[in-house]
Amino acid sequence: MRLLPVTLASLLLACTAAAADPNYARLLRQAPVKAALKYLRDDDPRTLQEQIALAQIPAPPFKETTRAQDFAARLRAAGLEDVSIDATGNVIGKRKGTAPGPLLVISAHLDTVFDEGSDVTVKQQDGRYHGLGIYDDARGLAAVLSVLRAMQAAKLRTVGEVWFVGTVGEEALGNLRGAKALLAENPGIDGFISVDGVESREEVAAGYVQVVTQATGSRRWEFRFTGPGGHSFGNFGNPSAVHALGRAIAAIADLKPPADPKTTFNVGQVSGGSGVTAIASEASMLLDLRSNDADELRAIEARVQSIVDAAVAAENARWNSTEVRVERKLLGDRPASTRIADTALGDAVIAAHAAIGLKAEPGFGSTDSNVPLGLGIPAATLSGGGRGDKAHSTDEWYEHVNAWQGPQVLLLTTLRLSGLAGKVKPGLKVRKGR
Amino acid sequence: MRLLPVTLASLLLACTAAAADPNYARLLRQAPVKAALKYLRDDDPRTLQEQIALAQIPAPPFKETTRAQDFAARLRAAGLEDVSIDATGNVIGKRKGTAPGPLLVISAHLDTVFDEGSDVTVKQQDGRYHGLGIYDDARGLAAVLSVLRAMQAAKLRTVGEVWFVGTVGEEALGNLRGAKALLAENPGIDGFISVDGVESREEVAAGYVQVVTQATGSRRWEFRFTGPGGHSFGNFGNPSAVHALGRAIAAIADLKPPADPKTTFNVGQVSGGSGVTAIASEASMLLDLRSNDADELRAIEARVQSIVDAAVAAENARWNSTEVRVERKLLGDRPASTRIADTALGDAVIAAHAAIGLKAEPGFGSTDSNVPLGLGIPAATLSGGGRGDKAHSTDEWYEHVNAWQGPQVLLLTTLRLSGLAGKVKPGLKVRKGR
Repeated sequence: MRLLPVTLASLLLACTAAAADPNYARLLRQAPVKAALKYLRDDDPRTLQEQIALAQIPAPPFKETTRAQDFAARLRAAGLEDVSIDATGNVIGKRKGTAPGPLLVISAHLDTVFDEGSDVTVKQQDGRYHGLGIYDDARGLAAVLSVLRAMQAAKLRTVGEVWFVGTVGEEALGNLRGAKALLAENPGIDGFISVDGVESREEVAAGYVQVVTQATGSRRWEFRFTGPGGHSFGNFGNPSAVHALGRAIAAIADLKPPADPKTTFNVGQVSGGSGVTAIASEASMLLDLRSNDADELRAIEARVQSIVDAAVAAENARWNSTEVRVERKLLGDRPASTRIADTALGDAVIAAHAAIGLKAEPGFGSTDSNVPLGLGIPAATLSGGGRGDKAHSTDEWYEHVNAWQGPQVLLLTTLRLSGLAGKVKPGLKVRKGR
Repeated sequence: MRLLPVTLASLLLACTAAAADPNYARLLRQAPVKAALKYLRDDDPRTLQEQIALAQIPAPPFKETTRAQDFAARLRAAGLEDVSIDATGNVIGKRKGTAPGPLLVISAHLDTVFDEGSDVTVKQQDGRYHGLGIYDDARGLAAVLSVLRAMQAAKLRTVGEVWFVGTVGEEALGNLRGAKALLAENPGIDGFISVDGVESREEVAAGYVQVVTQATGSRRWEFRFTGPGGHSFGNFGNPSAVHALGRAIAAIADLKPPADPKTTFNVGQVSGGSGVTAIASEASMLLDLRSNDADELRAIEARVQSIVDAAVAAENARWNSTEVRVERKLLGDRPASTRIADTALGDAVIAAHAAIGLKAEPGFGSTDSNVPLGLGIPAATLSGGGRGDKAHSTDEWYEHVNAWQGPQVLLLTTLRLSGLAGKVKPGLKVRKGR
């Protein structure tokens, strides 16, 4: 999960509408729903064991197959008959609805950021569980499984179909490839929930959890400048790849993107040249562009591309040359929310928190939900329950505190969106043109 | 040796005065001089064997001791009694003159550019000798030894004292430390000759050898920018070390130093940042500045230093910060000729070539001679004889063609500058204020 460090102040500016949704009161009065919520609390120790077991199955970037097969087996063991792994590696378990209705995906991601061969043993110390990916996103996977078991045990019948999904490629260079393929190949999906991450220390301190209801998009580029090289003195007058690189960075450094919607740039890493006495024949930079709005992301990217072209032209013009060139490589592509994004699904998630007495606030993030949000499909990312910190590092830790609340919120949201047969209509709309 | 790739055209612009110096005709008429020149031709095979033996003694940067001890032993074996190794590691063998007169150093450098543990075996193939440092500068050391033997054998008595020297630290980061210490600790030196390198393919093609009579100076700097770092999105607004680096490079790239005296700049290598999503907390660049004139070198360096300061200030100002800083480290310092440099010694070397029927031209270089030339002390660097190419690479090769001519030129120059007792007065002046 990439819950971006949004300031608390900015979160408070976001709307907190729909905190009181009468449909939740109605759901909470139903005996099978009460039974399912109790089931989730009772299932809490088992969910923790399942989370630890999943975390100890290596799932490095682009190598999620073993964990995927394990997750598929657990979905079948929980009672789903229609479980398959798609060509991209996503696990999809389908649970039918009672009538034609909206199709909801509830998902967590299978992959971790850790390389093959990393020690994924989970260790308990001082009341915490330490392990690579112990909460990011083994907790999400365990929460999805627990909710499925509760729905099966309480015989909850949703109106719309619900898919229980494990995605591949959420992290880093995975570039959301699992979610992208899932949404591209299944245009019938009407809503998408990702369970990713847990409550952070900052959220505990602030007294509420953050629900990702809008997507911070990112585009990451590698620019590689090349030139003729030569000796620093003998070939003085040849253009330099490093000098062209510097010209580009200097102009990028003076960009002034809007503060709202927040839009950022960063030349994060540079390398180039083979020594102090050689005119550089090669130089590269890695650029990160982000925005909370798809149009602004496109706009700053267009600016950067023309700056890079101008830098190459200026270095060549300085030496009356045409020899410096640039190659571009797109390394990362995470869609931003569109301005027209429907936040009703996010509102439903926040109201589900309120229904069990928790405070939640909407925010921005970079998760699997970026994909549907970029396509205009309602989506949100919520916590799997429990607390933790230091994801993406070897210090990652998890505290199993009030952890059942994650699955409870997920269950209630699912019922609210997909409907409870005969009792509550689906809150999720069947998309037009689907 | 660093015989810089000066274009042939620019060499031809240099003056070719003093090609006919009557003192050489007078020297050539002396029987002992004739004997010594014949000795050098006869000593040619032994000189080659000595060159190979010296090349096969490892002399990595800063680790020249073993080769120094061997060279000192060879000076003693050739008949010098006063041979010592100074605190810096230079070998100094002193040969007295007959009267108070100028003190001349004839030298070659002991060190190579090759790391400890490199295979220094010399291999013969297709008429060439292949080996690390086989001509740079084992040839120079062998030439100095052969001249000493010839002077001893022919009982040549110079008026001024002559020192036969092997210097340390000529190459790369050695930064001419041997020559610097030698000149600093021995203010009585009136002239300096370095024997470094051999005739290149370009020189063979052009029909003359290049004698280094003026020094291309260089100053090499590492600039290390630091900043607060942070997350590319969450901490957007922090200044970046990479962005400051880019600003500096862009401004340096637009410098316009004079074409004559040739003055150059090059940001040769850059690195920085820890990843695409991190605002860089560190970034470095290596800068090479060169000039054929000491004043121009100082001027461009002052410009660069103020550009770097301005780049740091601009990056901080952009984000209303003071957190980006820069550290400077001087990596290389090779003096340039001063405008008032006395070229009489260089003229004498060129005339010595003419005396044995060779054509030579003055040029610029970066050798041990930079040190005396920067101090206003007459100096030149000449070829050790033979031909070769690819110094500083593992492809270095040497052809033993007309190789005795190098020592012959060195002998005649030495006699011209230091005088031949009773026959020719010293051409080298005792410096004022010495």
